[in-house]
Amino acid sequence: MMILHHGWRSSASRRVRLCLEEKGLAYEGHVVDMTAMEHHSPEYLKINPLGVIPTLIHDGRPLHESGTICEYLDETFPDPPLRPDTPYQRALMRNWIRHIDGLIGNLIIFNWRHHLAKTASQWTDEELAEKLKNIPSKERQEAWIRAARKPYTKEERDAARGKLVVLLDKMEEALKPAGWVVGKTYSIADIAAAPFVKRIDEEIAPDEVTAKKHPRVHDWWTKLQARPAYERANFGPFLTS
Amino acid sequence: MMILHHGWRSSASRRVRLCLEEKGLAYEGHVVDMTAMEHHSPEYLKINPLGVIPTLIHDGRPLHESGTICEYLDETFPDPPLRPDTPYQRALMRNWIRHIDGLIGNLIIFNWRHHLAKTASQWTDEELAEKLKNIPSKERQEAWIRAARKPYTKEERDAARGKLVVLLDKMEEALKPAGWVVGKTYSIADIAAAPFVKRIDEEIAPDEVTAKKHPRVHDWWTKLQARPAYERANFGPFLTS
Repeated sequence: MMILHHGWRSSASRRVRLCLEEKGLAYEGHVVDMTAMEHHSPEYLKINPLGVIPTLIHDGRPLHESGTICEYLDETFPDPPLRPDTPYQRALMRNWIRHIDGLIGNLIIFNWRHHLAKTASQWTDEELAEKLKNIPSKERQEAWIRAARKPYTKEERDAARGKLVVLLDKMEEALKPAGWVVGKTYSIADIAAAPFVKRIDEEIAPDEVTAKKHPRVHDWWTKLQARPAYERANFGPFLTS
Repeated sequence: MMILHHGWRSSASRRVRLCLEEKGLAYEGHVVDMTAMEHHSPEYLKINPLGVIPTLIHDGRPLHESGTICEYLDETFPDPPLRPDTPYQRALMRNWIRHIDGLIGNLIIFNWRHHLAKTASQWTDEELAEKLKNIPSKERQEAWIRAARKPYTKEERDAARGKLVVLLDKMEEALKPAGWVVGKTYSIADIAAAPFVKRIDEEIAPDEVTAKKHPRVHDWWTKLQARPAYERANFGPFLTS
């Protein structure tokens, strides 16, 4: 039995849930309570030293990084395949995942605003210092300091939104030949993009994921949401969480 | 025939050269003149829209990102294999490459200092603005502005050096079982680390790559440099370039 430590709204967790469901694999889900900083607890750091979600436990061994986990699942459980069958297209797929990963900061800006800033702003300086002690990565320490004391500005949110719209532009171009991000079939590149488009469509720039603005992305997103695995992966909405 | 657009000192280029040489593959090398901003020329942007090096052309198609290129080469030319043979170890390998990729900013700080800042500081404001216009990525625009107008401070260099020493600490731990970064054999994870250790050893923190401070890294590095492919990949030194 596989165990997935995940969060409902986390983009990386959504990717792995979608991949598991596409493969029809059974797993036990453990929701990591991020508002209680469970992902920075000593128990969790034992299976994921970076203190991030998700972690997939398979055969008793922890796996990290959603893109890596999806490729591991495809190598371990090849049916149905979720990677293109030529090395060149697999290279394109990996670069898409990598490129989308590099945009995660633009989603995080909206996370804090909606969600964790309210909790964090109520901490005293002592409480904040105590939380920061348990956070391994300096980048994430800074994100918490921003959340607690200096929420992101409208300019920062606009810039982040702009970069996510550029992602839609690039997808629009990539979808041209066959309606999938890479090559002729659904792959981990589509799975990687799905949680981003979910949040853009739901909260960040809903007017961009439309038949008028990005018609191919709009069709792709409609098609992707109609997959049985998408339903089972439970992308939400969880706007109030 | 493959064509590699590369730079002698570029870590990503060094990885791909080493991988090509380990495979015994013939290629035509084109050195991209970065001081002349050739990587931001319209011709180069046609084969690499991000304006970074290296680009490998194989069968007339461009490949990007050194980690992706190395895995492509291993899939396309499987002998000798440069990936571990289990999915779990391949996952570890991919996360090592990813982790090391994330540290590239800490090398870049030393690049500018040694090398490009001198050129950039002599540009007029008009010349600087003109250069920036041709740079696609905002991050790299900022790096050039730093180089031209506000060179990195001692504190920033010390922090970068510290993060690279943490990489050596992690490698020291990983090398424990078998003397290679992942599993029992030499792999793309070792190839990914090599250009980083080269620069740490040569210029950034030479006293850390020693039998006393990091004995396993020291042995690994000695062993890696003794490989015939390492010699052919020509890592330099190029301190004066």
